[in-house]
Amino acid sequence: MSTFEDMGFCKLDTDREQRTGNPEVIFGQGKTVEQALAIFGRLAQVHGRALLTRASAEMAERICAVFPEASHVEEARLVRLGAPPAVFSGTVLVLCGGTGDIPVAEEAACTAEWMGCAVQRIYDVGVAGIDRLLSYRQQIQEANVIIVVAGMEGALASVVGGMVRRPVIAVPTSVGYGAHLHGVTPMLAMMTSCAAGVSVVNIDNGFGAGYNAAAIQRLLFEKTSLP
Amino acid sequence: MSTFEDMGFCKLDTDREQRTGNPEVIFGQGKTVEQALAIFGRLAQVHGRALLTRASAEMAERICAVFPEASHVEEARLVRLGAPPAVFSGTVLVLCGGTGDIPVAEEAACTAEWMGCAVQRIYDVGVAGIDRLLSYRQQIQEANVIIVVAGMEGALASVVGGMVRRPVIAVPTSVGYGAHLHGVTPMLAMMTSCAAGVSVVNIDNGFGAGYNAAAIQRLLFEKTSLP
Amino acid sequence: MSTFEDMGFCKLDTDREQRTGNPEVIFGQGKTVEQALAIFGRLAQVHGRALLTRASAEMAERICAVFPEASHVEEARLVRLGAPPAVFSGTVLVLCGGTGDIPVAEEAACTAEWMGCAVQRIYDVGVAGIDRLLSYRQQIQEANVIIVVAGMEGALASVVGGMVRRPVIAVPTSVGYGAHLHGVTPMLAMMTSCAAGVSVVNIDNGFGAGYNAAAIQRLLFEKTSLP
Amino acid sequence: MSTFEDMGFCKLDTDREQRTGNPEVIFGQGKTVEQALAIFGRLAQVHGRALLTRASAEMAERICAVFPEASHVEEARLVRLGAPPAVFSGTVLVLCGGTGDIPVAEEAACTAEWMGCAVQRIYDVGVAGIDRLLSYRQQIQEANVIIVVAGMEGALASVVGGMVRRPVIAVPTSVGYGAHLHGVTPMLAMMTSCAAGVSVVNIDNGFGAGYNAAAIQRLLFEKTSLP
Amino acid sequence: MSTFEDMGFCKLDTDREQRTGNPEVIFGQGKTVEQALAIFGRLAQVHGRALLTRASAEMAERICAVFPEASHVEEARLVRLGAPPAVFSGTVLVLCGGTGDIPVAEEAACTAEWMGCAVQRIYDVGVAGIDRLLSYRQQIQEANVIIVVAGMEGALASVVGGMVRRPVIAVPTSVGYGAHLHGVTPMLAMMTSCAAGVSVVNIDNGFGAGYNAAAIQRLLFEKTSLP
Amino acid sequence: MSTFEDMGFCKLDTDREQRTGNPEVIFGQGKTVEQALAIFGRLAQVHGRALLTRASAEMAERICAVFPEASHVEEARLVRLGAPPAVFSGTVLVLCGGTGDIPVAEEAACTAEWMGCAVQRIYDVGVAGIDRLLSYRQQIQEANVIIVVAGMEGALASVVGGMVRRPVIAVPTSVGYGAHLHGVTPMLAMMTSCAAGVSVVNIDNGFGAGYNAAAIQRLLFEKTSLP
Amino acid sequence: MSTFEDMGFCKLDTDREQRTGNPEVIFGQGKTVEQALAIFGRLAQVHGRALLTRASAEMAERICAVFPEASHVEEARLVRLGAPPAVFSGTVLVLCGGTGDIPVAEEAACTAEWMGCAVQRIYDVGVAGIDRLLSYRQQIQEANVIIVVAGMEGALASVVGGMVRRPVIAVPTSVGYGAHLHGVTPMLAMMTSCAAGVSVVNIDNGFGAGYNAAAIQRLLFEKTSLP
Amino acid sequence: MSTFEDMGFCKLDTDREQRTGNPEVIFGQGKTVEQALAIFGRLAQVHGRALLTRASAEMAERICAVFPEASHVEEARLVRLGAPPAVFSGTVLVLCGGTGDIPVAEEAACTAEWMGCAVQRIYDVGVAGIDRLLSYRQQIQEANVIIVVAGMEGALASVVGGMVRRPVIAVPTSVGYGAHLHGVTPMLAMMTSCAAGVSVVNIDNGFGAGYNAAAIQRLLFEKTSLP
Repeated sequence: MSTFEDMGFCKLDTDREQRTGNPEVIFGQGKTVEQALAIFGRLAQVHGRALLTRASAEMAERICAVFPEASHVEEARLVRLGAPPAVFSGTVLVLCGGTGDIPVAEEAACTAEWMGCAVQRIYDVGVAGIDRLLSYRQQIQEANVIIVVAGMEGALASVVGGMVRRPVIAVPTSVGYGAHLHGVTPMLAMMTSCAAGVSVVNIDNGFGAGYNAAAIQRLLFEKTSLP
Repeated sequence: MSTFEDMGFCKLDTDREQRTGNPEVIFGQGKTVEQALAIFGRLAQVHGRALLTRASAEMAERICAVFPEASHVEEARLVRLGAPPAVFSGTVLVLCGGTGDIPVAEEAACTAEWMGCAVQRIYDVGVAGIDRLLSYRQQIQEANVIIVVAGMEGALASVVGGMVRRPVIAVPTSVGYGAHLHGVTPMLAMMTSCAAGVSVVNIDNGFGAGYNAAAIQRLLFEKTSLP
Repeated sequence: MSTFEDMGFCKLDTDREQRTGNPEVIFGQGKTVEQALAIFGRLAQVHGRALLTRASAEMAERICAVFPEASHVEEARLVRLGAPPAVFSGTVLVLCGGTGDIPVAEEAACTAEWMGCAVQRIYDVGVAGIDRLLSYRQQIQEANVIIVVAGMEGALASVVGGMVRRPVIAVPTSVGYGAHLHGVTPMLAMMTSCAAGVSVVNIDNGFGAGYNAAAIQRLLFEKTSLP
Repeated sequence: MSTFEDMGFCKLDTDREQRTGNPEVIFGQGKTVEQALAIFGRLAQVHGRALLTRASAEMAERICAVFPEASHVEEARLVRLGAPPAVFSGTVLVLCGGTGDIPVAEEAACTAEWMGCAVQRIYDVGVAGIDRLLSYRQQIQEANVIIVVAGMEGALASVVGGMVRRPVIAVPTSVGYGAHLHGVTPMLAMMTSCAAGVSVVNIDNGFGAGYNAAAIQRLLFEKTSLP
Repeated sequence: MSTFEDMGFCKLDTDREQRTGNPEVIFGQGKTVEQALAIFGRLAQVHGRALLTRASAEMAERICAVFPEASHVEEARLVRLGAPPAVFSGTVLVLCGGTGDIPVAEEAACTAEWMGCAVQRIYDVGVAGIDRLLSYRQQIQEANVIIVVAGMEGALASVVGGMVRRPVIAVPTSVGYGAHLHGVTPMLAMMTSCAAGVSVVNIDNGFGAGYNAAAIQRLLFEKTSLP
Repeated sequence: MSTFEDMGFCKLDTDREQRTGNPEVIFGQGKTVEQALAIFGRLAQVHGRALLTRASAEMAERICAVFPEASHVEEARLVRLGAPPAVFSGTVLVLCGGTGDIPVAEEAACTAEWMGCAVQRIYDVGVAGIDRLLSYRQQIQEANVIIVVAGMEGALASVVGGMVRRPVIAVPTSVGYGAHLHGVTPMLAMMTSCAAGVSVVNIDNGFGAGYNAAAIQRLLFEKTSLP
Repeated sequence: MSTFEDMGFCKLDTDREQRTGNPEVIFGQGKTVEQALAIFGRLAQVHGRALLTRASAEMAERICAVFPEASHVEEARLVRLGAPPAVFSGTVLVLCGGTGDIPVAEEAACTAEWMGCAVQRIYDVGVAGIDRLLSYRQQIQEANVIIVVAGMEGALASVVGGMVRRPVIAVPTSVGYGAHLHGVTPMLAMMTSCAAGVSVVNIDNGFGAGYNAAAIQRLLFEKTSLP
Repeated sequence: MSTFEDMGFCKLDTDREQRTGNPEVIFGQGKTVEQALAIFGRLAQVHGRALLTRASAEMAERICAVFPEASHVEEARLVRLGAPPAVFSGTVLVLCGGTGDIPVAEEAACTAEWMGCAVQRIYDVGVAGIDRLLSYRQQIQEANVIIVVAGMEGALASVVGGMVRRPVIAVPTSVGYGAHLHGVTPMLAMMTSCAAGVSVVNIDNGFGAGYNAAAIQRLLFEKTSLP
């Protein structure tokens, strides 16, 4: 039995939910509205739910017109449809350094929610005013997984990494200029962080961070809730 | 009450075990044998266990002479002393691409073990002979966390990332030459992987990967085993 | 006797077909519509066939208006005119990782066809769902030459490179973001591939890959078909 | 039936000859003498021939002591044992720019020979004295495959690429200094060559170039010689 | 006596003609039309001639309206006014690789002319068809100074550098894509050229090349023509 | 008592004036007009003064409409409101290399003024006409702090650094092209300056330079003027 | 009257003390022992004091043998002779992230002392254990100038920058590996810091940081102590 | 008649003197002592003179033993034999920034002398003490060609470039550390210099600078001295 479906311009990995816990997610950037709509529709049919990231305004509008129950989260540039089969216990905490990082933080948060996570958000707590961050120390330490979204030099990841016993997933963003090199600098900085419990995903890849956080929460869920 | 101890040339973060679940770990590189020995000894006293990574041969010998119960894992370039307070259920799987990657893979494995993980190893399964990897598909899918250690172009991380529902931590290594740029190429490649569930740590940072895997396993352990 | 023809703004290499097997090909990018049209016309006159790559919409329209028998392959951004002097035996297989890579893959395929190759296409078989790729194992192993077009981290080239006894030509694409560095990352990754039989052409250079594949097929053709 | 053999520290891909036409080749760099010897021995047993590249002097000496019929090609830093099952018709031509490039050129030549190719060598024909190169125009045009090995700015690949109808495989070398960036500059330059029929392998990767050339020659051989 | 004149938004280096042989030249990019016009006018008044490079269309139009004797060389993006005090003997030869390089080549040629040089142009002689270049060998060897303008991998500079006894000034251009890195690749390649008599100016800096050629021709002129 | 105020989309660091001497400054780039206006208004209320940098034209217009006493310095792309609590004795001197650097120089000057500095400006004194610079030697040596703003190769910082006994703050700018790499080249050059008393801030970061100069002037002020 | 003295292999800038407040300082790296000794001796004669940085062991030994009153600070790799003409009021605080950063921190501290500063040191307060740093908040806020020395990702500079009203001079160090890129990563990160009052000097340039701090302290001293 | 001579491991370009004015020059680095000696001997035989650059101590010793009339210039790492056919009128001036740059400056000077130039040297005139440089203004303006050798940020080239009417050839050196990037920073800085009359050769390429200067002087010589 085939594990995928040939749609002509793409091969839908219909086995992916069985294998990874989530249906294939559509990366909107570089696709035509027609392609995105066709894949979204087929995923909705096969899995009863669908997620589209990096959606253009037109893409989102067309899809929401066809699927009225789909919701467009503008700030996060994504369209999501359907509820996760289960909601995992405990929370994923999404922190970000500045207001410019919020779109990426929201992509992470919405992705994790669509995959079954309960998400808490604390935004604009960059290290230039460290007391803002420290005032949330307890919430930070109580989360199951922490996603840190930061542009500029990305120092937030290191400070948070040293405060907790839980995995920290860092997302460098393209917010900055000059020596920031479109996000390459915070990416390298997070990679060479002096705090040990930090792993890193691609620049602006809120989706990847949310996905990783959900994988950790799913592990906990499946090991505790399943017979 | 102070959370650290001033040893003159360093400030020992004695609160770290309470805060993060593990005592401070000593990074041997760039330290003198005397410094490493002094910190190792103090950590052993305070916490009953200690871990030293990137240990030179001389460093390891001196420490093992003073602490006969410490063991030197030559291949992983580390010295470890003491048992973890608990052993976490489920396994961490460490995969590596080629024989040259084994030292980094062992650093990851030994670190995770010292922190309480049960570790399984499958080495030399690079994608140039994909059937080697595919023959272990079941073990890979059953692990709680997968660490992928690879040099060259690091493609192993993407292939494994697409096979599993669990978090994958990728470690690029400095094994390669030319366009490999001392590991920068696989680091960037893993970062921009087409597989979603992959997060990345620094080049040759086996310790960081083991630490992250242990943080995930500890979350599972503390949420399931503690009252 | 001169081997080229001075057209004022350019020197047409009229000897090229004799020397390399193919007439000069026009690289449309950076040329005016008038320049492209003039060269296209002169090539058509001299050789009876012509190929224009990186054609703008306006360029293609103007040329097709003047040369009704020319065909514009929009997705591949090229205009081709005339049939190859011979069709080579055996097939060139073009694989690509994702739908975003199709324009580059088509440039490769159409170029190879215009030069005399029979081409087979298998698209959207990126390694994140390895079973899609593996289901085509036989076709891949039966091709004479394999062109692998991939963006993101470009891992597809390594996996294919390890599966076959035939030359693999890898084309990194600019499809990706962040650590992908506009294609530099998959280019470097393909260059340092752990699979031996892979050689690489420039980012998005579908034309170059098609040209190389045709050179291999032409070698086979001329050594077997010519007296 | 398994396609590989687990030797403990490595998994020998014993199926590789069947799949790719050549046994696994040992990359000596980063391996211990014992590891190299063990793999060499096992390959010799299974396939009746073996090839070790990037061999240290000690490695070569130990292997030749155990396998007196093996030969150590010092300049190319490799040890080879056994004859190819067939010798392919036509020649592979290896060109290099300067005397400093000869070790890489020899690695390419010896690899191709071990795999069944007849190899012709023309060395020290860099473009700063273009007449040297032009005086070999006929030999260059008559070869089936041309390997161009060059350091500095690597311009030789472009000049040769424009002279022939056959595939050109370019190998940038680490011979140079300053702006040469350890070979990154000629690698990028060869990649963006104005000549179409050039594909590129990693810096100093003579082995890869030889392997690719042999794959092309094997294609010709198997399509013409086999029933 | 002051060597400059304060115009408010700039300090005109009125001593420059005395010191360097040429009046200050205006770099149009980043200046407003008003600024360019004001400086152009003042230079015309002080020196009787003026040169503006990187002129926008609007800038050129405004200046030519005010100074009808000024001429706008569109292809070279410059506006020039007035004749040089002397015309130097011998020629400066400007070569370029492809039609896309012509704007930069023209900037070099027009600058050199404005400064007193007789200029000869040979365009579209890239090394992919080496016979085009070789057919001009005599003209190339007879020039006093040779400017080589080339994009892609810039190999033309090396080939020409090895053919002549005269200084060669190489100008890398931003014509190319992918591994060409917006001209950084040919810049580095020209810098590490295997031909000795090549010096390099900035990417697309036709002006700088023309200026350098004129400095050499001026030296010859002043040493031979002046009492 | 909280040190910040939660405004929903941001956390205003209201303690910052107490801690650092200046209220939080708004970085306009990447914020919506509404966000900028809201923060500007709240800062004006709390501190009686406000500064917005990288203001878009629309942003500036909206804010000046609501706060008529605010002034928009177009060239410096900033909006400032209110007077500093004190004016520091001595002057900050802002030098720049060319007219293209003036916007960044003005950002530095206006920031320093808003923070309490007396500022002197000397513009267009790049080293290509060194006499312009040398004619201001006395003013340069009498300033308390010198800010050097320069694009191209940034050599001005080194020349000035060797002339004075006072701290020099260098600002590389994005004015240049080609090898200038959008300002990375002058940034690195200033960093590795042969003059000792130079420290560097980010590319185009006039604000940071003004802020640093003000911090030095404030130190002097508080140590001499306060009881 | 000449402002320098020609010593054959170098031109001693004897005017420098008059101009900048300090005698020329010798950078030992790349000089022979004889050269260093000769310059050191001449400086001692002219100015009564001398400073040599990056001194090799042999260099230091030879100089101390000739000048018994000179002292060799091994950890800082420098030799200093003589007392400053004045000691400035207030303190320069030197912070560093880890024990590996101490040599650079000591170079900064010893340089500042030799130039007249009172220096306070707080070492090993990296942000991975933020409470260590916070426990010194008062000392940090009371210093006149703060030097932050840090390797890895350099996040310490940002956290400190946000805590103080005084100038912060950041020194990235070469302590780290992999993505740390020999100090380029913390250099870029400090450059693009989210805290405004941070300026940066070259990697491992403790001398430059000490020099800058002394320039600030000298300004304060000369403006308050001189008539 | 052949224009080169095949020596087995190299092809001697015996036509080069006729074509370029100088015999082939041997680049010692990467050659064995035997190779260098053989080529040196053959060149001496054919042309009556020879030049070897980047000579190791052993290489120089062996050659001088065989050719007692050859002289080894240790500081410049070269061996030269024989006098130039003519000495050109006017002088080439070699400037360098610091004592560390002297070896490269001497390579330039000795090369130019061997080719027929009269050379004047002014060393250690870096811009941090600009008065040293300015005191030589007359000599600088009177030279026919100026070679500027500088490490660190290379600012000397720009200052000199703005002072003269003659061609300036800049040589970046590898003298520096950190942000200096082994000479890449001054190379890029010289390339993007604000002074127009500067062209650049490879890092540490004193030979290339001397060669270019000699080509200019030869032009002058041949145009004025020859009938």
